[in-house]
Amino acid sequence: MKIKKVVEELDPYVPGRSIKEIARDYNLNPDEIIKLGSNENPLGTSSKAVDAVINDLKLMYRYPESDLKGLTSSIASYSGVSTEQVIIGGDGADEILDVLGKTLIDPGDEFIVTLPTYTYYEFTFKIHGAVPVYAKWNMPENKVNIDSILNSITSRTKIIFLCTPNNPTGGIIEKGDIKTILESTDSLVVVDEAYFEFSGENNVDLLKDYDNLFILRTFSKVMGLAGMRIGYGLGNSQLISYMKRVKPVFSLTRLSQIAAYATLTDTEYITESISVSIESRDYLYRELSKIPELDVYESKANYLLADIRRTGMNSPLICEKLLERGIIVRDCRSFRGLDDYWIRISVGTLEEDEKFINVLKQIIG
Amino acid sequence: MKIKKVVEELDPYVPGRSIKEIARDYNLNPDEIIKLGSNENPLGTSSKAVDAVINDLKLMYRYPESDLKGLTSSIASYSGVSTEQVIIGGDGADEILDVLGKTLIDPGDEFIVTLPTYTYYEFTFKIHGAVPVYAKWNMPENKVNIDSILNSITSRTKIIFLCTPNNPTGGIIEKGDIKTILESTDSLVVVDEAYFEFSGENNVDLLKDYDNLFILRTFSKVMGLAGMRIGYGLGNSQLISYMKRVKPVFSLTRLSQIAAYATLTDTEYITESISVSIESRDYLYRELSKIPELDVYESKANYLLADIRRTGMNSPLICEKLLERGIIVRDCRSFRGLDDYWIRISVGTLEEDEKFINVLKQIIG
Repeated sequence: MKIKKVVEELDPYVPGRSIKEIARDYNLNPDEIIKLGSNENPLGTSSKAVDAVINDLKLMYRYPESDLKGLTSSIASYSGVSTEQVIIGGDGADEILDVLGKTLIDPGDEFIVTLPTYTYYEFTFKIHGAVPVYAKWNMPENKVNIDSILNSITSRTKIIFLCTPNNPTGGIIEKGDIKTILESTDSLVVVDEAYFEFSGENNVDLLKDYDNLFILRTFSKVMGLAGMRIGYGLGNSQLISYMKRVKPVFSLTRLSQIAAYATLTDTEYITESISVSIESRDYLYRELSKIPELDVYESKANYLLADIRRTGMNSPLICEKLLERGIIVRDCRSFRGLDDYWIRISVGTLEEDEKFINVLKQIIG
Repeated sequence: MKIKKVVEELDPYVPGRSIKEIARDYNLNPDEIIKLGSNENPLGTSSKAVDAVINDLKLMYRYPESDLKGLTSSIASYSGVSTEQVIIGGDGADEILDVLGKTLIDPGDEFIVTLPTYTYYEFTFKIHGAVPVYAKWNMPENKVNIDSILNSITSRTKIIFLCTPNNPTGGIIEKGDIKTILESTDSLVVVDEAYFEFSGENNVDLLKDYDNLFILRTFSKVMGLAGMRIGYGLGNSQLISYMKRVKPVFSLTRLSQIAAYATLTDTEYITESISVSIESRDYLYRELSKIPELDVYESKANYLLADIRRTGMNSPLICEKLLERGIIVRDCRSFRGLDDYWIRISVGTLEEDEKFINVLKQIIG
């Protein structure tokens, strides 16, 4: 049988490794590993979510609901939109990306990504036969290079991805810039707000004025449910209804649905998660900025990007040294547009942050 | 923005409804509803799976593993293949179907389905731009019409789907017929063994001789984990490695992985689940066969197909009457190739079966 050409040529996606994988590969005690690699919530999962899941465990043998009415209402209310504007994904925001591809992409269509950014956009859309067009993130100012996006738009552009706060740089895309882009094109502008809660800003207010805006979100970050793979999208109801036609019918597990619903009722947990992460981010930024060999970027998310070239080490070496000491950060070589001298550090608890800083100082020497 | 033509024209997939949805729509007590609509395991989930999940609940905030080494080994050992021949899906077998589409389908390619059969093949592959070619199930003999398949093969055929036991008819495709088809084509022959445990037969032995064989399986049936969305595929290692390139990286939730692994260690549960379902199937077949207005098909799976036209009612009417009395069966109008006079009944516990039979007799009068 013949494999599709695009699959033969596809770069594999490089995910962060789990604690279990690292413990196995480095012969470490999993309980002593500090994971600052995947932008998870250092507070853990909401206890309300844990309790709700326990109550439903005996029903794992039943198929999930397919209409997800309760969770849809709850997300609509949290986001300030109507239920017809919400679609829920069963593999985090990644499934929403795939559904966008299935709904919109014919082979040869183009999409614009602003490098460096979340690499899953490119991974997913290439599989659907779409062609990436690379615009630029303005690294020195940690903001979008808007001209590079406007100049990349062609008649074949189907989607423009804007990640704000941008992963892995942490910078924000200003609402005015988003409006400029929305007004420059009929193609869909996907604003990825995976980390919006940490920034205090969002773009939901633009949905009423721009039919070509789609907002992507996740329960994997502040909601503390990365392992349960829940994401959602907000957009105009007509697009959402087409997306629902192609969406996998049962992809959200029973327990994921229940955990997500319970977490949204736990407003205290959400508020505390945001403030703990911001406090940790500010602490890490202050401390890392004191290390003369590092250039740390200011961030509005729950991670910090650091340029490490003046340490004399590259990212695989520094990550290896950290791993040997039980600390996981993200080697940014897998981000197109970054070279071999960048690491991304997720915020941890203050205790984890402190240990990380101490170990890093030892390694840099 | 322009929606893809194939999406505008797509028939929506019609899933079985959940107990919660039915309870809401018919104002019933969820605890009193008997669900014989989705071929779930009437014994419920393995207690080992429940216990294992409880132990991991606090880690829902961590991303899942992406390599799934432990579960892969365990599935390989259960299936009698090597780990390189296994791919695991995070939305049941449905995700494996989607990954097959992503790996193999260019728009305009053809796939063959033998009607009536599981409708998700067609739903998924159409989204990838593939064109269905309809072969026939031999209904009177409840076996495959092999000539109709062989005559449907063209130079554009990419995949041939064979479901055994066939959903919804319950009949088996003989190994000899599968070999004939494998030898008649270079295209991939996907043998869907979702229900193989209930039939006592499988086709894993053919993998060593046929590179174009792919076997599809699920944890949603005898494994009692429909709500956790775990499926797997078995095939030649080269195809599997290409499929892994396009597979969503984290689609299997943490808890799904743990539940699946624990269930495979619970051999007692699996054995009992099989024997309970077979006993229930035999009981239901005997009792339904006594009702003169029904034509019930013999089945090797955990469901029975019945032709109800001699009751004077069609399937929406009889299903509605059953729902009003708290019993869910599958209205088979959503299966292409069946008309308005078929229902599919999943095996329940003997107590559920008995209640169903009594209610059905009342309705038929």
